[in-house]
Amino acid sequence: MEPTQGPRRRDGQGPDGRRDPARGRADPRDVRAWATHPVYVSPRGGPVRMPALPSRSKSEGSVPLENLTALANPVRHEANNLLAAISGTVDILLRTAATDRDHARASRLREATDRLEALLKAYLSLAHPPSAEDGIDGAQMLQLMRPLLVLTIGPGRVVEIEAEPGLPRLSASPAMLQAGILRLAREAAAAAPAGASLRVTLTRVQDGVALAVTSNPEGAGPAPLLLHPSGG
Amino acid sequence: MEPTQGPRRRDGQGPDGRRDPARGRADPRDVRAWATHPVYVSPRGGPVRMPALPSRSKSEGSVPLENLTALANPVRHEANNLLAAISGTVDILLRTAATDRDHARASRLREATDRLEALLKAYLSLAHPPSAEDGIDGAQMLQLMRPLLVLTIGPGRVVEIEAEPGLPRLSASPAMLQAGILRLAREAAAAAPAGASLRVTLTRVQDGVALAVTSNPEGAGPAPLLLHPSGG
Repeated sequence: MEPTQGPRRRDGQGPDGRRDPARGRADPRDVRAWATHPVYVSPRGGPVRMPALPSRSKSEGSVPLENLTALANPVRHEANNLLAAISGTVDILLRTAATDRDHARASRLREATDRLEALLKAYLSLAHPPSAEDGIDGAQMLQLMRPLLVLTIGPGRVVEIEAEPGLPRLSASPAMLQAGILRLAREAAAAAPAGASLRVTLTRVQDGVALAVTSNPEGAGPAPLLLHPSGG
Repeated sequence: MEPTQGPRRRDGQGPDGRRDPARGRADPRDVRAWATHPVYVSPRGGPVRMPALPSRSKSEGSVPLENLTALANPVRHEANNLLAAISGTVDILLRTAATDRDHARASRLREATDRLEALLKAYLSLAHPPSAEDGIDGAQMLQLMRPLLVLTIGPGRVVEIEAEPGLPRLSASPAMLQAGILRLAREAAAAAPAGASLRVTLTRVQDGVALAVTSNPEGAGPAPLLLHPSGG
């Protein structure tokens, strides 16, 4: 961390006791300044004035979104700890259930916990997509994204995921592939008749692998994406 | 939805059957084009070529982040449904526990579920901050943010939140207030001795309400933020 990014001492001096030249550049009228940058501290050490009722600007959204990304990993870690605590207890309940009713309750807990875990894993992966050093396993990526696909196509619709066996790993950017999958799902869902299920397919084509989202049984959908094999 | 944003027919025509002039502008070489915009469809209706191994650019991150924001509400809704299913069953387990051991297990489930719920509520509120039409209840906002404050200051440290009673509602932008709280916590944590707890305080000052994060017992921390009363 640079010294100019560190906490301010209330005596108006930098952490090292010298007067900090960078402080003069901070503008307390800038709506974003106090959220991201060291802010002006009055020589008397009084509080920093926060701009009231800031006007909405397009770039204002970037600061909260930075926190959404920065906290995704700590949140995932903490959520995994809590889900593991729940799962461990549910395992005991499943093993020790004395009656059918006890077992049914434990099974309900099991199912809801597993679905919650898959949902959070999928959502938080948008902030930190899986690594793709050796190329992406397309089928695995679709399974990871399944809970978000279900949410994207709307309630009451079924998502079918079909990946041809033995597909090559893909050279795409994981983040962009995730975004592409969601865009195709949104477009297909918007055009599909109410109640239609959606098929998400990965199939081998001449130049690589085609990712398509089509309505079932109509077979209509946006143009498929062509994905390239990694290392090709 | 504009027609140019809708799904493409594979015959290379727009949804209304006319040739779509906007399509000519899409550039398949643009790493972001296929993730957000209608992409070029060849006259033969073949798949759209996805750019391989795109170079990282600063703006590339915006597309996944848009999905992080767009899916926050559906994810919250679905997570709440699943947490409600878990909570309902845990309530039954607590009521019907026949032994101390059964009760201890149900209590563990209760605590982990409550903490998970608070964590997700706090995190997802970054994407869609609470409304502030009548001004922000600062104490409530700090409680909402508590799980993220705990993650921000790091393991093994305690967060104490203290809000003076009877504070006025605040006129700040909720998103910017959230970002400001997290920035203060990060700065205070970076400067605090290992093992120090952090105090997050809202106190009345001459011109409004001061938000401060200080280490305990040292009392050191970044310059507090001055928040204005709403309607003032």
